[in-house]
Amino acid sequence: MSLSMYQASVPVFTRILGNLSKILDKAAAFADLRGIEPSVLITDRLAPDMLPLSRQVQIAADSALRGCARLAGVDFPSNPDVETTFGELQERLAKTLAFLATLSAGQIDGGEERVVMLPMRGGEVTFTGQTFLLNFALPNFYFHVTTAYLILRHNGVEIGKADYIGGL
Amino acid sequence: MSLSMYQASVPVFTRILGNLSKILDKAAAFADLRGIEPSVLITDRLAPDMLPLSRQVQIAADSALRGCARLAGVDFPSNPDVETTFGELQERLAKTLAFLATLSAGQIDGGEERVVMLPMRGGEVTFTGQTFLLNFALPNFYFHVTTAYLILRHNGVEIGKADYIGGL
Repeated sequence: MSLSMYQASVPVFTRILGNLSKILDKAAAFADLRGIEPSVLITDRLAPDMLPLSRQVQIAADSALRGCARLAGVDFPSNPDVETTFGELQERLAKTLAFLATLSAGQIDGGEERVVMLPMRGGEVTFTGQTFLLNFALPNFYFHVTTAYLILRHNGVEIGKADYIGGL
Repeated sequence: MSLSMYQASVPVFTRILGNLSKILDKAAAFADLRGIEPSVLITDRLAPDMLPLSRQVQIAADSALRGCARLAGVDFPSNPDVETTFGELQERLAKTLAFLATLSAGQIDGGEERVVMLPMRGGEVTFTGQTFLLNFALPNFYFHVTTAYLILRHNGVEIGKADYIGGL
């Protein structure tokens, strides 16, 4: 079976978002065990002008949701970035995973040359489906998932790279 | 043109390693401008039991080099992890990029079902080429590149996500 646009996107985002969900569970359990107010972790960041954990999770979720919707050429729901607790962040991930599950291989496969327009700070950027997936959607997604992981790791949450990679 | 195993690997790793090289240049310039000993950055880490910047760069390089070699079914050079300066880390990236440039699409395309054996802590793991690329090689690579970026960002180096993503 040849590698396809669907296989390189929806199952990949789905898998890693599931791993992120388990990492957030470990962070919530860590806060509970140590008597740490969860918001201490949720609002932490690795530099004063970087985004906090909550936004890293929200952006990771939207990178997956919007990325796959754009590859499928379908509209996507706009999820307001209002989550402030681990429970709410888990709901955001669950909503995102539920949306990804509605996308079929038939909607995404063959979209290598589909025009994808992306609003960016400097104006709209035009990609082909393939360059959008490989050069933007995936690296951007992994960036925010890894940043979420590292904010927690930096705070002493007992997680390792295996939690990020997931079962092999 | 259909997405292929080659397009989803060699050019992707090559592009991001080039971005990492420019990030390291900015870090070296930052250290020079501020009168900071470069080793302060090169040996820094985000948690006491995480690997320092030098190892993050070395592992990112090897993830790309070994990952693509495994996809192509060819032997790969073993590069000792001896780099301690920005110049040496740049040489390591240059060597890695030179190796990637020797791999052709013909060696990698069609390898979706090729058996890939990976030595891991718990024993050897067997993948197909496609699951190895999507579930291990790419997420592992992005993890180490992002960690290298964040160690520098945490230290105040003036870099942004655009340096990681690169020109679009």
